[in-house]
Amino acid sequence: MGVKRQLLLVSNSTLYEGGYLEHCQEQIQTFFGQRVKKVLFVPYALHDRDAYAQKARTKFESLGYGLDSIHEVSDPVEAVRRSEAIFIGGGNTFRLLKALYDNGLITEIRKRVFQDGIPYMGSSAGTNVATVSINTTNDMPIVYPPSLEALGLVPFNINPHYLDPDVNSKHMGETREQRIIQYHEEPDTPPVLALREGSMLLVEDDQSTLVGSTGARLFLRGKTPIEYEPGSDLSFLLSTA
Amino acid sequence: MGVKRQLLLVSNSTLYEGGYLEHCQEQIQTFFGQRVKKVLFVPYALHDRDAYAQKARTKFESLGYGLDSIHEVSDPVEAVRRSEAIFIGGGNTFRLLKALYDNGLITEIRKRVFQDGIPYMGSSAGTNVATVSINTTNDMPIVYPPSLEALGLVPFNINPHYLDPDVNSKHMGETREQRIIQYHEEPDTPPVLALREGSMLLVEDDQSTLVGSTGARLFLRGKTPIEYEPGSDLSFLLSTA
Repeated sequence: MGVKRQLLLVSNSTLYEGGYLEHCQEQIQTFFGQRVKKVLFVPYALHDRDAYAQKARTKFESLGYGLDSIHEVSDPVEAVRRSEAIFIGGGNTFRLLKALYDNGLITEIRKRVFQDGIPYMGSSAGTNVATVSINTTNDMPIVYPPSLEALGLVPFNINPHYLDPDVNSKHMGETREQRIIQYHEEPDTPPVLALREGSMLLVEDDQSTLVGSTGARLFLRGKTPIEYEPGSDLSFLLSTA
Repeated sequence: MGVKRQLLLVSNSTLYEGGYLEHCQEQIQTFFGQRVKKVLFVPYALHDRDAYAQKARTKFESLGYGLDSIHEVSDPVEAVRRSEAIFIGGGNTFRLLKALYDNGLITEIRKRVFQDGIPYMGSSAGTNVATVSINTTNDMPIVYPPSLEALGLVPFNINPHYLDPDVNSKHMGETREQRIIQYHEEPDTPPVLALREGSMLLVEDDQSTLVGSTGARLFLRGKTPIEYEPGSDLSFLLSTA
């Protein structure tokens, strides 16, 4: 018996020239399938929660699902307890993680995923918080969460919106790859799966598959990064705890 | 009587196709002048402190200054107390700020700058930590400092390595401007001076001038950003506390 969990971790909400969640809508429908009628949406990563919930609701209704936004209920913990499925949207990862702590949701979401096996979908910041920690977010630290430790639904970290080095750039700030390697200069740091825009990770209990169109780059501490094509079996990453 | 302080806050250590600190070497010589013989270097932002100190030492010696690196002394607080001038180099801002806290240097550096008027130079991460907080760093949060509050040598924040939006980009992550505007969605957030690579800020007591070749963009909470050309008088920013 392995670990029970159903996760769809998407790199980015919107792909160039596409609509909101358009590039992953088939995966969303396969993931939630017929078992889910209504999704609990967490809009904490953006400032305008009403507008964000409306945008997500419109999209999910078009796919055949109802959507409740957690910011509209009086008791967020109770809303998680009653939810059939959770979707945490993108925005600023620090703001999102702080709000998850402030609302006492970390333990409760973990319970629902690991004990009850409800499906969890994350996009961008919502994918970052599903991992061990938000140490490999790209976002500005606009607020200070009580910890960088996150939901720990998988035993590694993800870098969403991964960007390959631009060989023509004259900008001298660190490339994304350099930043991730700096993270691995620190002791006891877990693997980092860098998901390009268009990529996503599907996790079903102890099985994990790379989905989407653009592939991913895996960084292991002290090793040369490895490329994975869409369709790759990444189940080995689930036993790196 | 205004506030006593002498600061040279540089956006970036290396400009495209230039050498280390080459683009600001005239400003460094004018800033430290004849009054300084030896600079205390803080290499905490990079992992390999020995190599970093050697690189900085070579450059400073070529400009006529000696350089001691704080990581080579047994008592860093005492080294700050005895220093004639401080230079904090770039790298990862979270790692740098955590090390400043871990070594008990925040209060001591503030004292030397404000009470004794010793010159402080920062580059990139070393510029970030000179401001109110590191909330507007571009770096990955690879470690967790005890606070995001920094030295507070000026009453505003800086975004170093500022990058204008790339109109041809297909990447869907937030632009730098969008990230700074997200910061200002939070309450009570100070102004953010976005220094392009090639820009630097000179602060002499209550006077401040934008120096370098590329200009800066000033973000005030709830207002349209304003462009400033090199040579602009930015002294008004020093009274925004």
